[in-house]
Amino acid sequence: MLVRPKAGILDPQGQAVESSLRQLGFPVGEARVGRVVDLELDTADVAAARAEVERMCEQLLANPLIESFEIELEDA
Amino acid sequence: MLVRPKAGILDPQGQAVESSLRQLGFPVGEARVGRVVDLELDTADVAAARAEVERMCEQLLANPLIESFEIELEDA
Repeated sequence: MLVRPKAGILDPQGQAVESSLRQLGFPVGEARVGRVVDLELDTADVAAARAEVERMCEQLLANPLIESFEIELEDA
Repeated sequence: MLVRPKAGILDPQGQAVESSLRQLGFPVGEARVGRVVDLELDTADVAAARAEVERMCEQLLANPLIESFEIELEDA
């Protein structure tokens, strides 16, 4: 899943990336930095897997006050 | 773009996520943690944008010794 700082929330990592890229000569607009977490789940039930990953995000992987998350499922 | 630790490279963040999820009762397999960087680029040329982001990854955003990157472009 992808965990990103919500709009309007200060993102110091993103600001650092933005200013470093400009110093290197890349004319970028806003940069935001978040996390990607790849997980292996042993289930064939897509709806159950999504619900489980949602619970993981809420309990551990994302801070709901300042971060939003996006879940992508794929077969392996 | 997405920046992930290469296969075989130690990923302490991923290990911490994995063991925390198991302690919370989620039966997960391997977990890996990387970064997602969202950037605004002012160009309509998809090929040029991709080449530019590749250069950013190589010069700043990813460590090619231990990380791989994946570029996704979208219209805004």
